[in-house]
Amino acid sequence: MAKENITARSKDYSQWYLDIVEQAGMSEPSGVRGCMIIKPHGYAIWEFIVSALDARIKATGHVNAYFPLLIPKSYLMKEADHVEGFAPEVAEVTRGGGKELEEPLVIRPTSETIIGVSFARWVRSWRDLPLLINQWANVMRWEMRTRPFLRTAEFLWQEGHTAHATEEQAEEETLKVLTEVYADMVENVMAIPVHRGLKTKNETFPGALRTYAIEAMMQDGKALQAGTSHNLGQNFAKAFEIKYASESGTEEFAWTTSWGVSTRLIGALIMCHSDDDGLVLPPALAPVQVVIVPIMRGSDEDKAKVLQACRDLTAGWAGKIRFKLDDRDNEQFGYKVNEWEVKGVPVRIEIGPKDIEKGTVVLARRDRPGKEGKSFVPQEGLADTVLALLDEIQTTLYQRALKFREEHTFDAATYEELKEKVENGFVRAYFDGDSEDEKRIQEETKATVRVIPFDQPSEPGLCIVSGRSTNQQVIFARSY
Amino acid sequence: MAKENITARSKDYSQWYLDIVEQAGMSEPSGVRGCMIIKPHGYAIWEFIVSALDARIKATGHVNAYFPLLIPKSYLMKEADHVEGFAPEVAEVTRGGGKELEEPLVIRPTSETIIGVSFARWVRSWRDLPLLINQWANVMRWEMRTRPFLRTAEFLWQEGHTAHATEEQAEEETLKVLTEVYADMVENVMAIPVHRGLKTKNETFPGALRTYAIEAMMQDGKALQAGTSHNLGQNFAKAFEIKYASESGTEEFAWTTSWGVSTRLIGALIMCHSDDDGLVLPPALAPVQVVIVPIMRGSDEDKAKVLQACRDLTAGWAGKIRFKLDDRDNEQFGYKVNEWEVKGVPVRIEIGPKDIEKGTVVLARRDRPGKEGKSFVPQEGLADTVLALLDEIQTTLYQRALKFREEHTFDAATYEELKEKVENGFVRAYFDGDSEDEKRIQEETKATVRVIPFDQPSEPGLCIVSGRSTNQQVIFARSY
Repeated sequence: MAKENITARSKDYSQWYLDIVEQAGMSEPSGVRGCMIIKPHGYAIWEFIVSALDARIKATGHVNAYFPLLIPKSYLMKEADHVEGFAPEVAEVTRGGGKELEEPLVIRPTSETIIGVSFARWVRSWRDLPLLINQWANVMRWEMRTRPFLRTAEFLWQEGHTAHATEEQAEEETLKVLTEVYADMVENVMAIPVHRGLKTKNETFPGALRTYAIEAMMQDGKALQAGTSHNLGQNFAKAFEIKYASESGTEEFAWTTSWGVSTRLIGALIMCHSDDDGLVLPPALAPVQVVIVPIMRGSDEDKAKVLQACRDLTAGWAGKIRFKLDDRDNEQFGYKVNEWEVKGVPVRIEIGPKDIEKGTVVLARRDRPGKEGKSFVPQEGLADTVLALLDEIQTTLYQRALKFREEHTFDAATYEELKEKVENGFVRAYFDGDSEDEKRIQEETKATVRVIPFDQPSEPGLCIVSGRSTNQQVIFARSY
Repeated sequence: MAKENITARSKDYSQWYLDIVEQAGMSEPSGVRGCMIIKPHGYAIWEFIVSALDARIKATGHVNAYFPLLIPKSYLMKEADHVEGFAPEVAEVTRGGGKELEEPLVIRPTSETIIGVSFARWVRSWRDLPLLINQWANVMRWEMRTRPFLRTAEFLWQEGHTAHATEEQAEEETLKVLTEVYADMVENVMAIPVHRGLKTKNETFPGALRTYAIEAMMQDGKALQAGTSHNLGQNFAKAFEIKYASESGTEEFAWTTSWGVSTRLIGALIMCHSDDDGLVLPPALAPVQVVIVPIMRGSDEDKAKVLQACRDLTAGWAGKIRFKLDDRDNEQFGYKVNEWEVKGVPVRIEIGPKDIEKGTVVLARRDRPGKEGKSFVPQEGLADTVLALLDEIQTTLYQRALKFREEHTFDAATYEELKEKVENGFVRAYFDGDSEDEKRIQEETKATVRVIPFDQPSEPGLCIVSGRSTNQQVIFARSY
């Protein structure tokens, strides 16, 4: 774990990402194709993400449940688009307890089908609706090209599945989760600004009526889809016979939704905030928010005095600040500082014999490396100083990412402008083209329509492809 | 969800268990052989168990991580006893992305092997030890005869895996987890008294040096193994080359441990406390601790007044008491009461127009059904009254289970006595037999040595099989 081992972003952005993952102890490859080991530091961050999401999922009325890992292959075949989307990338269990199975079981790539079978049993009358279920689980998609967190064969996620009496209610749910659960968590906890909007047909979930997404910008100007929420219409209800008796006694198909975010968010976190020195973590999900690194010089007695000062200073912090005193005696001060910087700890406190004399400490901000981020502050009231600084860092990271996105978002009035500008970030453009247009644009520019934002301009404009007047503005970008 | 659908324990204990699982909405079968769906009420209880365990696992110095679901079959083959124990019951993935795999992957039945491979990479020097890792995961064992929670093909669990420099340290870890994590949680949160002790060779984990366990008594007098902690010696370290450079520079094999508890604990919870009316939950893990059921009579105005009184009474309870106001207007009072009893809610508050006049409410304890558990209490100070009652119920459930265990634990001085008494519960007996003796006893009595308790008598006695003098007393029982 050393910043010397991290490739500069400007030199090789892709290698920089892999170096951060490795040096910060986030994950490592396993002996299983495409599957990663999530190491303790990476998993601890995931736990904070889970906790923040779970609270929001519950606050919006959902309850957790758990459905089987294995799905009979025949279930997957019931919804036509769904099977086309997922069948080619499943892992299949064909033997159990030493015997060939009569029907292969697939490891869930997502659980609409097996949950659909349960929903068909659970929903009888309009009084059973809405049915608001969430599941925390591992899923598997047999990806050919994998990258830690961003695209792995196995990944961890939550998947929400709900059933409603009307299309309006399903639509309301789909949008509520996108904004009140996903965008709220990603912006306020992960400090990553996102665009909220609708996906085009090309990017719609297999089997869905409409897919909504939140999209974030990474530091190379590429987009990362951070979460999706699908209005499944009645497609799965019809495939799995999720029917209810309405208040007036008629039999109706339910309207269902599904929505998910995954360990991919950790990839977004890394690529949004980190720098050439290592990980940079927003305080809200930093496993260690503050590290205290004592400056140990002189006699054993002097050292003991410094350590005691550290302990006195942090007495009473437990439960308010997640802190760690690095009292290892086998590592040098510089080595420790380097290690905590690589791991992204938001605030470092340095205390030496001189600080004790003067009643001060050094506070160093991870988000502003070097001298600029260092300040001497009084020991008195240090907990409050630190809490205020953590808040400030959280805000700063969000504002910095937002500023970066704005500086790398361009308007294009013509297709030529799109081609040129999409090399450097997001491009906002009027567009009313169809799937074929999108495919051609992707071939020629490597960019796709990431999202049709909810925020639309009040004036119409001319489509950059057809030249027709349209009210629809979209965001084009290359993406992960 | 109705108590009328629950078979009496005295009539058919096994059916009673299945009825509780179904009527209380804990789990249900899925279309996948041996795999259950954990329904919201069951899962919410699991979340409390997870949270209580996770806090203790972290407080004892462990960190969480995540390892792949799939394990190359060759890993499983590296430790001789381990492969013998687990190979016959694995599910195998032989196809991925539409192609046959070169080497089959098994769905983890437990993760010693894949974690062993990582530990071999992570451990270099004595300074890397102890390595204290835990994982929350789903695992799969292709069981032939399954029962919800007690024995399912897929189940949820945590598995701890640690590496140490010396045998003493590994042993200390094994015992610490058994007592400070498992026994502490099961007794203080789940209100289930357990015996702590060593397993005999017959019941030792495949590949372990020693297995320790906590064992609980169910209401039919049978034992349920609630958690195990294994000292793996150097067996896995040798199979997976987990080596470290000692302080003096020599190369040594590490000593490893593993330990786990699973959703099986929910089966123990049901069978320890519940009654013929449904589930009985200890307040510490009841998703709803208190339900308020208003008595809605008279005019709409009267009803509104009762509901308002309920809201006024519970104002300020959020964050202190997990409560729910059952304000459904489409269900009768009796139906509601029945439903909450079946679901095991520890305390029910009833309020009607008369109570409002008198400034009282009715408190009903789930652990004492009928009139005996009902009392009128003043509305003033209700939150404190309820909090005290929840504490009392928690203690009462533990004491009641302990009393039941004591009343159903017998001493046997001879094999004949064992045969007779083990029909009705646990039997304490002096025993120094070997594996063959145990097997014979199991064939003849259906009972096994559940545990060699840490608490041993100060005086030696005569082995019930060999007649030899021995210091070792064991607990025999039939088990789940």
